[in-house]
Amino acid sequence: MDYKSKIRTIPDYPAKGIMFRDVTTLMSDSEALAAAIEDLCRPFERMNVSKVAGIDARGFILGGAMAVRLGAGFLPLRKPGKLPYETWSESYALEYGSDALHMHTDGVEEGEQVLLVDDLIATGGTAEAGVKLLRKGKADIVAAAFLIDLPDLGGARTLRELGVEVMSLVTFTGH
Amino acid sequence: MDYKSKIRTIPDYPAKGIMFRDVTTLMSDSEALAAAIEDLCRPFERMNVSKVAGIDARGFILGGAMAVRLGAGFLPLRKPGKLPYETWSESYALEYGSDALHMHTDGVEEGEQVLLVDDLIATGGTAEAGVKLLRKGKADIVAAAFLIDLPDLGGARTLRELGVEVMSLVTFTGH
Repeated sequence: MDYKSKIRTIPDYPAKGIMFRDVTTLMSDSEALAAAIEDLCRPFERMNVSKVAGIDARGFILGGAMAVRLGAGFLPLRKPGKLPYETWSESYALEYGSDALHMHTDGVEEGEQVLLVDDLIATGGTAEAGVKLLRKGKADIVAAAFLIDLPDLGGARTLRELGVEVMSLVTFTGH
Repeated sequence: MDYKSKIRTIPDYPAKGIMFRDVTTLMSDSEALAAAIEDLCRPFERMNVSKVAGIDARGFILGGAMAVRLGAGFLPLRKPGKLPYETWSESYALEYGSDALHMHTDGVEEGEQVLLVDDLIATGGTAEAGVKLLRKGKADIVAAAFLIDLPDLGGARTLRELGVEVMSLVTFTGH
């Protein structure tokens, strides 16, 4: 599947100079969506993944489907104020200021095989917060999977330095 | 599947007197999640659903998986400021103030068969905004499907009065 041709690029969004990669066009295409879920899951189908952790909110679209495909449960990693039970949180830097990701403290069990998922990895701040939360819960991170990697921004490299395997279906380099 | 026993109730969240129905415990259970996706899709499997419209953000978890199960594409209905392309918006009332839901103007085609999905319907304000957006795009709404219906709050009735078929897996009555 030529995923790249299914992704819409929106120049200067949300700020001047940024080429925004819009995955809604890929997801609205039934064949591309089904193929993407299949390709994102295939490397992990024999790895006893018991939970797919999806990052709020586009990671939920992929993560729910991947959980069903892999016979796993789904764990939401969410922005502050969204999870109703007791949570752990990890903050991460943004260009201006910071944000945080939360996980229910009973979201994973010790030694559980978890696959982390989001639509895109750029600088990797959010994904790194996800890794820290999962490790706080003593989960075993099988890998982190993304539709899109922007390797120039270094996020995938950061995750690999943390000992996390990274896979993606598409990369965009340059700006 | 006894879905009710998989849903955690959190008293007095997010405000005193509210019994919050926490679906994360159901979704974290691989068998309950797979069964819920199957049961939510079964009534629609012969209805040529070409798109599943999921409401931000828990509707994304179910909607992505249902889209793949039904061989459909996925359409996100999102909070303001989240969709990068041209959008339509519909506002709806909250207990204090209001919020809005957005949809990409090219999100549906005229006459397309769309299934609307969210985790829960209460007063139905968000779902009603979703119905209006889909109709602005001239889509044909096959039905609205929810894990949980709180019938005392009237949302399902409101949708039916708008001519939308409503189904849910679980109902909670009283407070």
